[in-house]
Amino acid sequence: MGKITAVSPFAPQALAKLPAIDGVRFATAEAGIRYQNRTDLMVAVMEPGTVVAGVLTQSKTCSAPVLRCRENLTHGKARILVVNSGNANAFTGMKGREAVDATVASAAAAAGCKPAEVYVSSTGVIGEPMDAGKFTHLLGGLVKKTKANAFEAAARAIMTTDTYPKVVTRKVDLDGVKVTINGMCKGAGMIAPDMATMLSYIFTDTAISQKLLQALVSEHVETTFNCMTIDGDTSTSDTCLVFATGKAAEKGQEPITRKTDKRLAIFGAALHDVMRDLAIQIAKDGEGLSKFVTFEITGAESFKAARTIARACGNSPILKTAIAGEDPNWGRVVMAVGKSGEAADRDKLTIWFGPHCVARNGERSEEYDEKTVAQYMKGREIVIRADVGVGQASATVWTCDLTHDYVSINADYRS
Amino acid sequence: MGKITAVSPFAPQALAKLPAIDGVRFATAEAGIRYQNRTDLMVAVMEPGTVVAGVLTQSKTCSAPVLRCRENLTHGKARILVVNSGNANAFTGMKGREAVDATVASAAAAAGCKPAEVYVSSTGVIGEPMDAGKFTHLLGGLVKKTKANAFEAAARAIMTTDTYPKVVTRKVDLDGVKVTINGMCKGAGMIAPDMATMLSYIFTDTAISQKLLQALVSEHVETTFNCMTIDGDTSTSDTCLVFATGKAAEKGQEPITRKTDKRLAIFGAALHDVMRDLAIQIAKDGEGLSKFVTFEITGAESFKAARTIARACGNSPILKTAIAGEDPNWGRVVMAVGKSGEAADRDKLTIWFGPHCVARNGERSEEYDEKTVAQYMKGREIVIRADVGVGQASATVWTCDLTHDYVSINADYRS
Repeated sequence: MGKITAVSPFAPQALAKLPAIDGVRFATAEAGIRYQNRTDLMVAVMEPGTVVAGVLTQSKTCSAPVLRCRENLTHGKARILVVNSGNANAFTGMKGREAVDATVASAAAAAGCKPAEVYVSSTGVIGEPMDAGKFTHLLGGLVKKTKANAFEAAARAIMTTDTYPKVVTRKVDLDGVKVTINGMCKGAGMIAPDMATMLSYIFTDTAISQKLLQALVSEHVETTFNCMTIDGDTSTSDTCLVFATGKAAEKGQEPITRKTDKRLAIFGAALHDVMRDLAIQIAKDGEGLSKFVTFEITGAESFKAARTIARACGNSPILKTAIAGEDPNWGRVVMAVGKSGEAADRDKLTIWFGPHCVARNGERSEEYDEKTVAQYMKGREIVIRADVGVGQASATVWTCDLTHDYVSINADYRS
Repeated sequence: MGKITAVSPFAPQALAKLPAIDGVRFATAEAGIRYQNRTDLMVAVMEPGTVVAGVLTQSKTCSAPVLRCRENLTHGKARILVVNSGNANAFTGMKGREAVDATVASAAAAAGCKPAEVYVSSTGVIGEPMDAGKFTHLLGGLVKKTKANAFEAAARAIMTTDTYPKVVTRKVDLDGVKVTINGMCKGAGMIAPDMATMLSYIFTDTAISQKLLQALVSEHVETTFNCMTIDGDTSTSDTCLVFATGKAAEKGQEPITRKTDKRLAIFGAALHDVMRDLAIQIAKDGEGLSKFVTFEITGAESFKAARTIARACGNSPILKTAIAGEDPNWGRVVMAVGKSGEAADRDKLTIWFGPHCVARNGERSEEYDEKTVAQYMKGREIVIRADVGVGQASATVWTCDLTHDYVSINADYRS
């Protein structure tokens, strides 16, 4: 672990209290995989009938657990999720696959389900062989002591360099039946999700078909987790899984099974809200951050072009260090827009720092006042907007500044 | 300017002494554009008959001087080069074009040439309107006091956050006639050349057609400047110009005018060597560096794929901070290979840190010894090799580590 232990300035004063979700129970343990005196193993047990949808890292060197999740998602049924922190079980060859096999076998026995209904994730150091024997013997006992009200403990057990657990809850009314969506995730470093995300688990009692749930997750990940970056470094282990127990059917919720069902959009909006909230929480706990930064790009050719430009800003070390230094160095936004490779009209480019227009139509704005903008940069939350003047599409990317603490944390991660 | 003023540990003990090149003369001045008590204006005057070839930034927000160079390169004749530091004249709208017009007009009058034979570059802060009036009146006097032996002074005048001037010289024998190639460049931050480079000027007395010279420059930039990165941030102002005065013809060098001329490859190899040397010098003076890092990727599908993977390593903040911390965290090389998007066989991936194989065929190498590799990481020059196991192509990228000093320098660049 790195040297910095201060809590992010964006940690919530008090964590949200998450209601129980019918059909899901959690337990955690101290397995001593790498960390001492903290939980590092989490299991979630779901009742029969639970469907799961998800997206996984597009990394060409993805971890052994990611490969197993990808395989099991083709079935889309889930009964148990096992997550460990401290070791990513990535780039561990045949031994990595064997560790997954052993975990899946023990978990299936503990939950009384098929191996195809087991989901596994690992997060931590890459390339260190993982000894699943440190925790497989614990799974039987853990399943027996699962509790419905243990979301926060579960969210804590999956943390690595995170400084606070990330949880969120939303309730939705589906034709008179209240359903709940609870989510948790971890982030902190090596975060630049691409078609996927860092570890994120969302649970709902909504009754919905796996196919429609997968379509919603695939759609909303593009504007939530895939619009967030800490350092431009896409992890080998990114995983976002959404579990729907369907238990709301017992309260009278007619299952959602058709694309034309108008409740699909209502549920989808709430799911989007949960995913967006989690993505922002990850950015707000970026390694070593002092400021939370939002890049809003408008006037682009397409959403993807706008997002590429916003990511170019969000991944620029020279821009993010200027923000850390509270320097309104908007010329570096010009640089990032230019290097992105996407269409932009230099002579229409207009840039705002918060409410202040700093550049208009390709040159410094006449109303630009260095002192006013420098004062704005002292804030904790910085919003930078740029209109690139070639179209109507837009995108928003959330990130943080690049500070001395990021360097310290990552210079010493393994020591 | 940032806070850090220590000289790069890779600065040469003594600068190379560059011989005069027949047909080129230099002068510098303190114009007070931004810096005080240092030179910030450089002119190079070339004799009639000089041809020029070059490559320029692909940035969509490129600077006004870059646009003028691009226009003038279509003619390919050069008589005078004017470079200022302290202001990039980028994103300065109509005023930026007017500043270029004024500079070109004054320079053409001073050198007694056409405006199309004037080349201009500016480097420094982006978005600050540039007052060409600070130096246009100096050009006439400067041209009169140019000297053939003033390469080092010229290289110093174009520096921004560079900690040492970067020069190189090579001599080539072309069928018994010795020709010379001298080069200079500046770098330091916002450096990730893409089809171009930061400011770099190369001079030779070789007699060669402009068309062939341009073909050589375009070819060799791909494996030299475009294989170097400091922070992944492509500048608005990248410029590489190669001037050939042709004066060696007076010593009997038959001009090179045909593709089949075997001297083309001999001259090309020396030019490549000069460009490679300058690119490495830029990496060795990266902002705040403590280590010079080389990534060698082999076994890729193509040179471009190999370079993309090597750049993904060279631009990874999380990997480069680990190197700064002397941590042999090779899992982050696995991450960078994976995120690059290029084909790689995870289960054949093999990685070396210097002479030490740390991973072989998709998992930690059996001969891996943490202490030995940790000792290797204490060195100043780090070579990391990865074979991605899918083809025969390779590429090398030069970069540096990401340190606290990079953050300090860029948090305060404008203050």
